[in-house]
Amino acid sequence: MGPALVLRSSQLATAHRGYASVAGKAQVDEIHKKEGVYPVDPGFVCPHASAAAAAAKTAATVAAAQAAAGCPAHAKGPTNPHAPKAHPEHTATTFNYEAFFVGELDKKRKDQSYRYFNNINRLAAKFPVAHTGSQSDEVDVWCSNDYLGMSKNPVVLETMHRTLNKYGAGAGGTRNIAGNGQMHLALEEELAALHRKPAALVFSSCYVANDATLATLGSKMTGCVIFSDSMNHASMIQGIRHSQARKVIFKHNDMTDLEQKLAQYPKETPKIIAFESVYSMCGSVGHIEKICDLAEEYGAITFLDEVHAVGMYGPRGAGVAEHLDFEAHLAAGRSPHAIKGTAMDRIDIITGTLGKAFGVVGGYIAGSADLVDTIRSYAPGFIFTTSLPPANVAGAQASIVYQKEYMGDRRLQHLNTRELKTRFAELDIPVVPGPSHIVPVLVGDAALAKRASDSLLVNHGIYVQSINYPTVAVGEERLRITPTPGHTIEQMDYLVHAVNSVFDTLGIKRRSDWVREGGRAGVGSEDVAQEVTPVWSDTQLGLTDGTAPKVLSNAQGDKAVVDLKALREAQRRFDVTLGGGNPAHLAEYLIATTNKFGDTVQHGALPATRLAKATTLVPASRA
Amino acid sequence: MGPALVLRSSQLATAHRGYASVAGKAQVDEIHKKEGVYPVDPGFVCPHASAAAAAAKTAATVAAAQAAAGCPAHAKGPTNPHAPKAHPEHTATTFNYEAFFVGELDKKRKDQSYRYFNNINRLAAKFPVAHTGSQSDEVDVWCSNDYLGMSKNPVVLETMHRTLNKYGAGAGGTRNIAGNGQMHLALEEELAALHRKPAALVFSSCYVANDATLATLGSKMTGCVIFSDSMNHASMIQGIRHSQARKVIFKHNDMTDLEQKLAQYPKETPKIIAFESVYSMCGSVGHIEKICDLAEEYGAITFLDEVHAVGMYGPRGAGVAEHLDFEAHLAAGRSPHAIKGTAMDRIDIITGTLGKAFGVVGGYIAGSADLVDTIRSYAPGFIFTTSLPPANVAGAQASIVYQKEYMGDRRLQHLNTRELKTRFAELDIPVVPGPSHIVPVLVGDAALAKRASDSLLVNHGIYVQSINYPTVAVGEERLRITPTPGHTIEQMDYLVHAVNSVFDTLGIKRRSDWVREGGRAGVGSEDVAQEVTPVWSDTQLGLTDGTAPKVLSNAQGDKAVVDLKALREAQRRFDVTLGGGNPAHLAEYLIATTNKFGDTVQHGALPATRLAKATTLVPASRA
Repeated sequence: MGPALVLRSSQLATAHRGYASVAGKAQVDEIHKKEGVYPVDPGFVCPHASAAAAAAKTAATVAAAQAAAGCPAHAKGPTNPHAPKAHPEHTATTFNYEAFFVGELDKKRKDQSYRYFNNINRLAAKFPVAHTGSQSDEVDVWCSNDYLGMSKNPVVLETMHRTLNKYGAGAGGTRNIAGNGQMHLALEEELAALHRKPAALVFSSCYVANDATLATLGSKMTGCVIFSDSMNHASMIQGIRHSQARKVIFKHNDMTDLEQKLAQYPKETPKIIAFESVYSMCGSVGHIEKICDLAEEYGAITFLDEVHAVGMYGPRGAGVAEHLDFEAHLAAGRSPHAIKGTAMDRIDIITGTLGKAFGVVGGYIAGSADLVDTIRSYAPGFIFTTSLPPANVAGAQASIVYQKEYMGDRRLQHLNTRELKTRFAELDIPVVPGPSHIVPVLVGDAALAKRASDSLLVNHGIYVQSINYPTVAVGEERLRITPTPGHTIEQMDYLVHAVNSVFDTLGIKRRSDWVREGGRAGVGSEDVAQEVTPVWSDTQLGLTDGTAPKVLSNAQGDKAVVDLKALREAQRRFDVTLGGGNPAHLAEYLIATTNKFGDTVQHGALPATRLAKATTLVPASRA
Repeated sequence: MGPALVLRSSQLATAHRGYASVAGKAQVDEIHKKEGVYPVDPGFVCPHASAAAAAAKTAATVAAAQAAAGCPAHAKGPTNPHAPKAHPEHTATTFNYEAFFVGELDKKRKDQSYRYFNNINRLAAKFPVAHTGSQSDEVDVWCSNDYLGMSKNPVVLETMHRTLNKYGAGAGGTRNIAGNGQMHLALEEELAALHRKPAALVFSSCYVANDATLATLGSKMTGCVIFSDSMNHASMIQGIRHSQARKVIFKHNDMTDLEQKLAQYPKETPKIIAFESVYSMCGSVGHIEKICDLAEEYGAITFLDEVHAVGMYGPRGAGVAEHLDFEAHLAAGRSPHAIKGTAMDRIDIITGTLGKAFGVVGGYIAGSADLVDTIRSYAPGFIFTTSLPPANVAGAQASIVYQKEYMGDRRLQHLNTRELKTRFAELDIPVVPGPSHIVPVLVGDAALAKRASDSLLVNHGIYVQSINYPTVAVGEERLRITPTPGHTIEQMDYLVHAVNSVFDTLGIKRRSDWVREGGRAGVGSEDVAQEVTPVWSDTQLGLTDGTAPKVLSNAQGDKAVVDLKALREAQRRFDVTLGGGNPAHLAEYLIATTNKFGDTVQHGALPATRLAKATTLVPASRA
């Protein structure tokens, strides 16, 4: 156990909340149950907690924790008169529920899919740095879906503060009963305009939006068949299942396979083609225009999940469908009207999230007025739930407006993505090839991926979650890395060296190893590599005309750029609801004010904690 | 059209956002589509908008709006070169999706279940007052589920402001990937302690919690049978459906029926009894102890939805299950341990919300460590979604702690409920009898219920949403009224007189009318009335020893009470995460400071807008 881990274990013991979170506590509970000292007094600290946490953190198995010696602090048998069993006792003839749960958890542990939650607290003022279970233990976060750092954008925070003060913490009801206000209506109008659709509808999350929309459409249209990309997200899979419609899975991004399957059904059969623009775990991108062609030919409607693309692609941040007609949408500016024949116009239903690039929480659909109204009127997951708090929806709207008006964040994000992919390639580190902003580093083994993630966290102060089955296929386990515009070149240096070092230490296969084995998950497969042209072109990124944003550098004292024009435009949306939007109000949330660029202000204290490490670190095997 | 409505219609026309919300826009769009001028430029205002809004507001049918004369401002045919169809055209042989959606919406309009969302913006500083689509048009809200006004509680807001500043707007990931922090872990620990269970787990909403938990349990336990109360909430119904387990519905609160149905299955069959403590639309209360008896006898586990009860019942606000052993739980104080043999201990799974009495957003389950860990490990609706923002979960925790420490809000809420029920009874206004805090005023007709709600809003400045099918049975339509501790006696006077006046004007049946007809929904049925003993006894409310909270009076200049001890205890929870909790920080959110009661401070500007009306109004038929 390294010094950092000892520190964390002792913090866990005193705080009684686990670095490994629920898992740690559950394991300790198990030990105590076996020893007859369960539940224990919460004020009392037992060494089992730190043992379990250590086991979890170092990816040792539960067995190690369970094999720990009896806890000398506890006598056998109940010492607390209030210590009953946590559930009614069932007789021998009844179903043993607790044994069933234990068995289900054991299955997860056996197939390495049991999840330990890391305790990561992302700091707004130090983005992209977080503290762990200890306030003083800071790490660089390289796997958040707050892709653009909008969760700390000054106009998002200022709008949320003002909304909290005026409208309070919660909505207080469903959309139909006391929970529908100006903030909700304004956000939906903003979203409809973003996608140039007649209407939009907001849900608790995009999981709920996908589930509720597919379930409602699939169940209401008698005889409906839903064609689903094999890599679709769990929320779409659940929605299709809940619709009880016939489901036809087509091979990921395989248009030939899709067409063959569409052709098997009569034209008059109602059909939905459900797919994504950016597949978040591999970074591949859906063939939007080809799918629209097929949908029109075979009489289907299209359902496009842009969850990982909104804010990230297109001149206004509307997603990949917008990006495909970049110039047309750029020229149309703030118009909310559809542009005939564009990919975004041809898609029938777009779903997106407010919780990733937009930095807040919630999900939505956009489409025709009658389609949206049908979902609004029939989907239980929309109707029978408390609506999102006014402050959340207002913050999300501010974020959308900001990203509509300012392209710099997503351009810089994609520049950082390119740079990171290049550096990994130079070091023979295997990255699943793809045209998007996701950088999936292939590990190819569940235990090894977890150990790599743990080592990065404990030994290098870098947080990258390992992605294992069932999120990805067995044998394709990975470290999913997501650069942001807020990462500095020094943080990237440090990450690349740390990953390289961990690859050496743990003996993880390099790209050249995968090539020799014939490839895995697209790594080392010649045919895949050829297909990969980044969604953002050199021209779109400003690389050809010298307008590309500058990658931040700690050494040069750079601070993250905030665009004042975009801030003001976002603030203006709330002039009526929140009162005069005074740009000076934002000063509270800005570290510095207007700079030499005139309309651009600087924001945020940059993290310098990693700088020293980055400049002094010498990778073990490459010294 | 009254002056208020004219005002609102013109506001709608200028703001381009409807008082009747989505519905209004959709209707106007329909008219424009028929006239070939769709989509219209958003900067242009067409009189159809106000016509549709007026139609919606006055409960005239859509037909009225559609019958409006052609809009003279628009020439026929597309005037905007960017005006395409909003979706791909399908040939005649393909399924006509848009026609299908129009048809589904027509069904809703025909059976009177089409919903128009009112635009209600609840004002934190004027609780329980909201403004409508116009900032200057204020109404008393009498149907919010922010039962205790916690959405404007100073420690909730202060905690949320501080968390926003420190941790930003969004969580940035799922619980497994970058979205799990100290705030989430602390909230779950607080919830587990609240229900004296070993573990708890937070979801996006309790809709998701119910759906995900029942679906997961019912599908994983082979052969599981789920026994479901006939009045269960939509989220439980969906969860059971999604589990694909066998479902057995028992008559609402009918223990004989439940037992007969349980007895039909072998003891070793896994069984779940799913029910609620407070049924929100009728205000009835589940037979928790009897169901626990049956569960133990027949080998079932119990799933209790306390969504409308948490914060509202029990000495610590843990719900009705806690309330049943009031003295034992009061005596056990802050201990997180189960109390053997109590109703709360005997229940296996408790679900609750953070979005009603606790005033924020989100849902949760509480139960044994292994049960909770099984849901954590297997439920897609928990796993694959962005976690709630840190500020939301921190605000929710502050709210829970405050309510754990201070009983005054819920006692005053129940005193106001009693008073309101008494006043309605005096005026022969039919209230569905029940022992809880819900005051359902029976109307018994969908169109009439909507007209009553519209009339209260437009003519009296009171917002009470009408509740129609499918939320309640056809013929049992109602106005669901929810008093809060923040309502003054003058506001109540005004409400009672307004409801009475609307009953007269619209000729809605009185209680005595229902008695003559043999009763409806429990109104006028002798057998039901006998059963109703309020959950909160006179002793528990402090009526026998003179410690009952004082109902607020505008005339006496009362301000809502905020308990400083509870504030401080809630603030202390965040000493580590947010830095030293200085009670003085709360001053910003408090209108007044420490008063003659020492540890109690006054909070919030009381609404005086209704006072004048309350004292001058003379009900039409009772003058």
